[in-house]
Amino acid sequence: MAAAEGTVRTREGCQNECMAGGCSGEATKLATESFKASDLVITPATTFKEKPDPNGLVFGTVFTDNMLMIEWSLASGWEKPYIKPLENLSLHPASSSLHYAIELFEGMKAYRGVDGKIRLFRPSLNMDRMARSARRTTLPSFDQNELLECIRKLVEVEKEWVPYSTAASLYIRPTLIGTEPSLGVKKPTKALLYVILSPVGPYFASGSFSPISLWADPKYVRAWKGGTGDCKLGGNYGSSIYAQQEALELGCQQVLWLYGEDHQITEVGTMNLFLYWINEDGENELATPPLDGIILPGVTRQSILDLARNWGEFKVSERYITMSDLTAALEESRVKEMFGAGTACIVCPISKILYKGKHLHVPTMENGPQLTTRFLNKLSDIQYGREDSDWAVLVS
Amino acid sequence: MAAAEGTVRTREGCQNECMAGGCSGEATKLATESFKASDLVITPATTFKEKPDPNGLVFGTVFTDNMLMIEWSLASGWEKPYIKPLENLSLHPASSSLHYAIELFEGMKAYRGVDGKIRLFRPSLNMDRMARSARRTTLPSFDQNELLECIRKLVEVEKEWVPYSTAASLYIRPTLIGTEPSLGVKKPTKALLYVILSPVGPYFASGSFSPISLWADPKYVRAWKGGTGDCKLGGNYGSSIYAQQEALELGCQQVLWLYGEDHQITEVGTMNLFLYWINEDGENELATPPLDGIILPGVTRQSILDLARNWGEFKVSERYITMSDLTAALEESRVKEMFGAGTACIVCPISKILYKGKHLHVPTMENGPQLTTRFLNKLSDIQYGREDSDWAVLVS
Repeated sequence: MAAAEGTVRTREGCQNECMAGGCSGEATKLATESFKASDLVITPATTFKEKPDPNGLVFGTVFTDNMLMIEWSLASGWEKPYIKPLENLSLHPASSSLHYAIELFEGMKAYRGVDGKIRLFRPSLNMDRMARSARRTTLPSFDQNELLECIRKLVEVEKEWVPYSTAASLYIRPTLIGTEPSLGVKKPTKALLYVILSPVGPYFASGSFSPISLWADPKYVRAWKGGTGDCKLGGNYGSSIYAQQEALELGCQQVLWLYGEDHQITEVGTMNLFLYWINEDGENELATPPLDGIILPGVTRQSILDLARNWGEFKVSERYITMSDLTAALEESRVKEMFGAGTACIVCPISKILYKGKHLHVPTMENGPQLTTRFLNKLSDIQYGREDSDWAVLVS
Repeated sequence: MAAAEGTVRTREGCQNECMAGGCSGEATKLATESFKASDLVITPATTFKEKPDPNGLVFGTVFTDNMLMIEWSLASGWEKPYIKPLENLSLHPASSSLHYAIELFEGMKAYRGVDGKIRLFRPSLNMDRMARSARRTTLPSFDQNELLECIRKLVEVEKEWVPYSTAASLYIRPTLIGTEPSLGVKKPTKALLYVILSPVGPYFASGSFSPISLWADPKYVRAWKGGTGDCKLGGNYGSSIYAQQEALELGCQQVLWLYGEDHQITEVGTMNLFLYWINEDGENELATPPLDGIILPGVTRQSILDLARNWGEFKVSERYITMSDLTAALEESRVKEMFGAGTACIVCPISKILYKGKHLHVPTMENGPQLTTRFLNKLSDIQYGREDSDWAVLVS
């Protein structure tokens, strides 16, 4: 593996330090005042839900028996972390997460490998992004390694919930919310960090790729410069559903998010976007939009870039691509493959884009999709232990 | 009163129909499937908190004994509305409000008049905006009149909580949140509408104006075209606190939100913005940014525009104002008054703006502030029953 975990972290971290402005000093100070995994109080469930068939799972609808919970207050700092039976949260109706969306989350997975061992995939990238999201939304800092160790323990407690299948996994949802019990738009004095787990099935039920169609319209904009599109905050997602509904009404499955007067292509649904093409200079190029503040720094995105750069077989670029760049390339048959990338599906091929009333055909499937499949296989080989890699972190 | 409530509603409503695109038909259909105030089940608290001194209130920290709660599900529609003792909400940890900010709120007040009667101020404007926010965030529709009647009943139950003071009021916080108990970014199949009440003191403790200083920097952007800045969604607020913290560190009290390459001035903190000046053509003009999708259509904003147009003494404009328009006018001594407008303070004079490293002095206080004071007096006369108006709606 060419790019060491540490290197990647530093690059992404630095970029966001700059974005976050004057707050990094404070974050560093508070990070030392973290909860500790060694303080974990584990009182697991004594009754157990039936574990579902991994072939019939609907994403995020079934949860495991236990959860991780850690409370924070300005007055007392972080309390001890608890692993305890999954239960409803008891929240004051004025809680700042419910009024002002002072909230963030992460999405990661635990995989049961072909050797029976359970692995996480580059989890420290999720922990680092979570810390940056916390800073951006004025939620408390914590030591990322301590949280990762707490999550590892939770997955260990719930290890029988990690599907015995290389087509399924255990989705991990760390969440941090403001629980300030008063109104007024301000930095919260109370917060709650919790983690819930949900076994999830294969994204492609058949095991083979189903390409998706996209709706590209500048009417709705996902994120903007000076906003929060590069952090995993709740507000980025709730505002997207209306556009997603409109895409469905128009017969498309996802929104292709455009930005600016020149209709830059930025993300697709809740995924990062990749284009494999012959670029304007006649070079084979894998391109994805740069992390300029409106793009979520996805873990799968980073891993695809790292793999491709390591292979060294074609140009790899973080660059702007406009709809007119794309339409010109489609007309000139320079587009090879286009795909979304994210934790849920790993990669998701794109076959059609509805833009300015016209259906553009993207020949992803006609081209294999060779590169898309190669990324899928490579990443799932690492995740399911078919290939050794320092990107895979053993749970037990 | 020149502008009838109905006229105002229609104008704002129409604007948002256009924004909301193809969804208005569905909203109309669902609105008929609303909860009914006549179904209210009232089981009020039997123990009572001590009511605080209206002179020592901190905004949004004390809540009354009861709340309104109405549950919705896709399967069963709206349940009966309940008025019952204020209590914590029990929410599934996967609730879509906590992960994807599928949530919205309103802010309004009940005033105890000089005649002892309790009044709301143009509440149907809040109800209409709430309905539009619900549509934008794919939360269920409801009949605005039915909700208003439920709120009226709640205030009636809590009438002793409406401060006996013309310098205080009872703040009303209607809230609508997605309670979908599963992950995946989608339209929620469960929701909860609730209303909590909080007695609030005078915004200006001394009874006289304290002007505020603003930080104007394009680094953070509150809202953008194609986003949700014209709806009262949680996501618009949580993302603003980081900038507010930075403003405080720079010695300013609020953020003056800029937009675009030309640094248009849009809003101030969580308030709309007004400039009273001699414009480029030498006319006396009261100006506020137009409702072009990035401005919240404030009830106080609308009321100030309606009053000023009714007076007919100077030009009243919904127009763009850039920082260079403003700095030129300041240099040429054409600025008379600048103020924020919102439910919390009614009007809030602005005396200083930190922009590009320079402190700009705004002579609002030197000019009285004559017009700002006139709006404050006029609106509070209506709210506290010193002047008769169809903008005031009697609770009891």
